[in-house]
Amino acid sequence: MSSENTATSTSDEQQRRERALTDRVIASWAGTSDERLKEILTSLTEHLHAFVRDVRLTEDEWAKGIEFLRAVGDITDDRRQEFILLSDVFGVSMQTVTVSNEAVGNATEATVFGPFFVDDSPEIPQGGDLSNGAPGQPCWIEGTVTDTDGNPVPGARIEIWEADDDGFYDVQYDDDRTAARGHLFADDEGRFRLWGLTPTPYAIPHDGPVGALLEKTGRSPMRPAHLHFMVTAAGKRTLITHIFVRGGDHIDSDAVFGVKDSLITDFVEQKPGTPTPDGRDLGDRSWSRVRFDIVLAPDNA
Amino acid sequence: MSSENTATSTSDEQQRRERALTDRVIASWAGTSDERLKEILTSLTEHLHAFVRDVRLTEDEWAKGIEFLRAVGDITDDRRQEFILLSDVFGVSMQTVTVSNEAVGNATEATVFGPFFVDDSPEIPQGGDLSNGAPGQPCWIEGTVTDTDGNPVPGARIEIWEADDDGFYDVQYDDDRTAARGHLFADDEGRFRLWGLTPTPYAIPHDGPVGALLEKTGRSPMRPAHLHFMVTAAGKRTLITHIFVRGGDHIDSDAVFGVKDSLITDFVEQKPGTPTPDGRDLGDRSWSRVRFDIVLAPDNA
Repeated sequence: MSSENTATSTSDEQQRRERALTDRVIASWAGTSDERLKEILTSLTEHLHAFVRDVRLTEDEWAKGIEFLRAVGDITDDRRQEFILLSDVFGVSMQTVTVSNEAVGNATEATVFGPFFVDDSPEIPQGGDLSNGAPGQPCWIEGTVTDTDGNPVPGARIEIWEADDDGFYDVQYDDDRTAARGHLFADDEGRFRLWGLTPTPYAIPHDGPVGALLEKTGRSPMRPAHLHFMVTAAGKRTLITHIFVRGGDHIDSDAVFGVKDSLITDFVEQKPGTPTPDGRDLGDRSWSRVRFDIVLAPDNA
Repeated sequence: MSSENTATSTSDEQQRRERALTDRVIASWAGTSDERLKEILTSLTEHLHAFVRDVRLTEDEWAKGIEFLRAVGDITDDRRQEFILLSDVFGVSMQTVTVSNEAVGNATEATVFGPFFVDDSPEIPQGGDLSNGAPGQPCWIEGTVTDTDGNPVPGARIEIWEADDDGFYDVQYDDDRTAARGHLFADDEGRFRLWGLTPTPYAIPHDGPVGALLEKTGRSPMRPAHLHFMVTAAGKRTLITHIFVRGGDHIDSDAVFGVKDSLITDFVEQKPGTPTPDGRDLGDRSWSRVRFDIVLAPDNA
């Protein structure tokens, strides 16, 4: 843009034209009978137009954006949802989670759901093992489920899923295995304990246009090591979250912005031979242990 | 959202979390070596997050948005670009045109390019006919090309293209025809004159997800009748615009927001037998005439 152009860009007439256009588009949604849809379309119009005006988007840049979206569509199929990845790397998924799970006292913070949850996971008894043969270092996971007043929540359903030591979830294999996922129920004092695997970092799919964007912007496709939790109980807001490994790689550069300080947890390494909490004999293997005390918000929050 | 939730939505802690997330995403673009790309990604992040926060987007609504984008991708191929349609019906295409063609004195306003331009159109002599057999009412098109000081621009290249009377451009037929498009050059006094067709309204493709959105929001897929112009000349900013038929259907509800008051033009109906400007014998057919005086901005605008 020439300096002459910069000068005219703030002319009254130019500003009038830009604002008038935005107003005309907003007015076009006025006939929408679904009030919530109208609200969403109006706000989206306002913000998209403000973006175009703020950066003085050129027609070439617009065309590149259209081509990028086309490429995102082209790679998307029943197994690959590049639009979710795109939302993830812009933090839009995480911002949606944040506004949908308002802060309530000391309630545990939520984070992204991710694409690897599966219904009908196996039930694991207290003290059981959800790994089901998945490779990785054994990890003793224990904690409590309470409400925001500190009362235990007996019977809370705790669902846990994670990637194996190779960085893959069971559903990413072609052999229909079920491994490294399961659910159990909090005991009468709101406690839970089970064996899983020490989580390890992995990359989000990055061989598509979203990966190319990360590459071009010097960003990493890696997610730091984490365990997924979904905790449900009558009268409580469902909690979907992760815990992350304190000091782990990529903890400050999660590709999808799922990390919150309150969710970074100590996974304490245990040397081979260290007695296990339940007397399990792990031979010459090292293991780890982690404690996660979960606080559920009331379900009207 | 319960009223309790509404109350907590403005809590300091909640606001801190939402803002902190946006800041983290913006910081993630900091390593982008292309400064312009960094500027665009930063602004896009800011506006997308503001949208999510402003409407308090729910996770279900987010999922519907992702599915919508997937559907837009699914229908897109080499002949159908639904992402452009999506940009068009949100007025994003038109806002890009507006900010890219700053107001300069009395220079003619620009509007959307559209998908139907074709390179290498035939050259039409002054007074010639670009219809080449396309069905429609003959229309005498004449005018001048001048600069913003009123000086004629001899030799300016004037490209014109339009839909036929059935609402289709030549490229929408399967038979490789070239019709209702062409270019000519302004004469020594900056004048041009030729025969075309009186334009008629037509619908944008609306059998896909964008059409479903228009339907759901009570909007029409119609574009008002228009003639496309692209005018180029040495030392002048290229002008891409339309002229619209004053009083025509859909003039106040263009599906893509291309209409500007300054581009609405009188297409004056002529009864059968009215003498034509160049003595052409149109038999018992009616015809129309329109005058479009084009003012080009300097090319540094």
